[in-house]
Amino acid sequence: MDLSTVQIPVERVAHSKRSEVDFNHLPFGKVVTDHMFICTFRDGSWQDPRVVPYQPISLDPSAKVFHYGQTIFEGMKAYKDTEGKVWLFRPEDNQRRLNISAKRLAIPEVPKEIFMEGLKTLLKTDQDWIPTAPGSSLYIRPFVFASGKGFHASPADEYTFIIACSPSGPYFSGKVSVRIEETYSRAADGGVGFAKAGGNYAGQFYPTQLAMADGFQQVVWTDDHHHEFIEEAGAMNIFVRIGNTLLTSPTSDRILDGVTRKSILQLAEDEGIPTEVRKIRVRELVEASQNGTLKELFGAGTAAVVSPISSFGYQGKRYELPDLENSYASQFRKRITDIQYNRAKDPFGWRFPVE
Amino acid sequence: MDLSTVQIPVERVAHSKRSEVDFNHLPFGKVVTDHMFICTFRDGSWQDPRVVPYQPISLDPSAKVFHYGQTIFEGMKAYKDTEGKVWLFRPEDNQRRLNISAKRLAIPEVPKEIFMEGLKTLLKTDQDWIPTAPGSSLYIRPFVFASGKGFHASPADEYTFIIACSPSGPYFSGKVSVRIEETYSRAADGGVGFAKAGGNYAGQFYPTQLAMADGFQQVVWTDDHHHEFIEEAGAMNIFVRIGNTLLTSPTSDRILDGVTRKSILQLAEDEGIPTEVRKIRVRELVEASQNGTLKELFGAGTAAVVSPISSFGYQGKRYELPDLENSYASQFRKRITDIQYNRAKDPFGWRFPVE
Ligand SMILES: Cc1ncc(COP(=O)(O)O)c(C=O)c1O
Ligand SMILES: Cc1ncc(COP(=O)(O)O)c(C=O)c1O
Repeated sequence: MDLSTVQIPVERVAHSKRSEVDFNHLPFGKVVTDHMFICTFRDGSWQDPRVVPYQPISLDPSAKVFHYGQTIFEGMKAYKDTEGKVWLFRPEDNQRRLNISAKRLAIPEVPKEIFMEGLKTLLKTDQDWIPTAPGSSLYIRPFVFASGKGFHASPADEYTFIIACSPSGPYFSGKVSVRIEETYSRAADGGVGFAKAGGNYAGQFYPTQLAMADGFQQVVWTDDHHHEFIEEAGAMNIFVRIGNTLLTSPTSDRILDGVTRKSILQLAEDEGIPTEVRKIRVRELVEASQNGTLKELFGAGTAAVVSPISSFGYQGKRYELPDLENSYASQFRKRITDIQYNRAKDPFGWRFPVE
Repeated sequence: MDLSTVQIPVERVAHSKRSEVDFNHLPFGKVVTDHMFICTFRDGSWQDPRVVPYQPISLDPSAKVFHYGQTIFEGMKAYKDTEGKVWLFRPEDNQRRLNISAKRLAIPEVPKEIFMEGLKTLLKTDQDWIPTAPGSSLYIRPFVFASGKGFHASPADEYTFIIACSPSGPYFSGKVSVRIEETYSRAADGGVGFAKAGGNYAGQFYPTQLAMADGFQQVVWTDDHHHEFIEEAGAMNIFVRIGNTLLTSPTSDRILDGVTRKSILQLAEDEGIPTEVRKIRVRELVEASQNGTLKELFGAGTAAVVSPISSFGYQGKRYELPDLENSYASQFRKRITDIQYNRAKDPFGWRFPVE
């Protein structure tokens, strides 16, 4: 296939399901659009990219994704501005990160042209599905999984790359309180924590259920050695504000290099907010909370955008965060969403037109 | 469903594929039998257990297994003795371990009755598929995956439990040499390493490919902190013989509690072989190799049975193992397979008749 001239054929649905959807009360990630993009890796190359009606996937029971969790994904959003123009936010970063994940999971990399042309063709096909109600957007889920067969713990010989879309409302409803994890871990040194690998998420479900049973919404992961340093949350990187300083953990092979995280770091620099990217001890959070210098804790991610955290739990105690006017979280949320929805200038070149 | 009287309906294939298979040259895990067992968790309970023709699975693209790697499996074998009787080896240990994995992965546990009756019904249906050529057996793959839908990183509301079977030859062809891993890791403290969770395997593929490119067949994993202690291999627990002492690492939340491993420990006790279950430093292996006391290294697992290791690589050097007559590995292999194939007494009650 000549990648310089990728042409993506589109097979349209006979009847759109769009009229069945209440766009003013959208849940997160449950409603799907009419179409999906699909492409298959077979005989050593990615083949047959196309947009087709959203439809079930048929797989042999020995497909390796079922057994060895050989699967990676991305999370992106498309935004519609008041003039109906469609925008993505730093999509090439997601494309690059998908391939970083692919490499670590022994999945063949997806050529940039296929990713970008597939995505654009799909978005143009389903552009009427992009919601415009405040706080809503089109969540986009590119994923690649091992569709090749065999009960043998080794990489598959066939992979399927799909992009699906879901018009979605906010990820969290209400305040977010987090538990700082002291027992379970998300990632090992030398492991796959930096990749958006399926298994990283399944491993979080049980500890998160335990946290939820105690009244939290998310877990903040810590290092697996001594649970001494905070790392990130289930689907968000974590920021801390102590005094006026903004802190976040450095990325590593255990932490996802979030697009929202790095955008916030750039905005902070732009606004002259003193920032430190360094390891953050749990003890430091607790002490700052006790002496009143802990001003904010917030999560940052494509799905959750910027989500203020109202309290954290640690060693059986709850630490409340103050309710600030004009918080860093609210400032960053506004600046990022203004850029995403084309309501403000885009000095960094993050906005990407779908046309 | 009343579990005390589980009845498993069987829908048979119209035409068996059995005559197309060369039972004297079986690969591992590639040929599948005519039928499979399937059962679905829905509305809070396991429902509709049945044996059906082996067939593709149809799933929504948002099925959580594709995104979050929420999947677990087991590996077992069925053996046919010279009189045509069919045997399993400690199947209840696999059933129990599946549920240990299930709990950690937030997957609903599979009731013992469904597992055991499903397995027996399937084996009776496909008993003609159990190979009898030396070194071959019917590999059995029970697995449970999240078939419920939604682009939201949280447990699914629907799961599928399948048992499939593959008449198989040996797992390894030829000698096995291993690389002791110094960079990558398989599992974190507090992670899911002790579970047969899909993601544990996908994460091993890339480091294993790197090892293969350097002429090894498998990686021996070490702790993720300092790569100081050996843990286990990709699909085998690891045993070491120094002098006449048998050593193996203790199980932990990073290491799979292998059925073969614990069977070997019991056989060693039975035979009066001095045994130590303790952490093993890589340095100790290297020193023992250098001073000539390192007699054996072998892997133990259902698929690989007992597989002698001929050399190990560490810090760019290769250490060869001697080629012993009457090695522990060959003794254990003989004792275990004699029990499995009903060629010897079974003092431990490990053999389980399928009838
Ligand atoms: C584990 C994890 N950390 C952080 C993030 C945030 O990354 P991004 O801002 O690129 O969405 C996500 C979500 O994508 C995630 O899954
Ligand atoms: C990671 C791992 N370790 C060890 C083993 C050996 O366990 P068992 O002897 O129960 O097959 C397996 C295979 O099942 C495995 O996948």
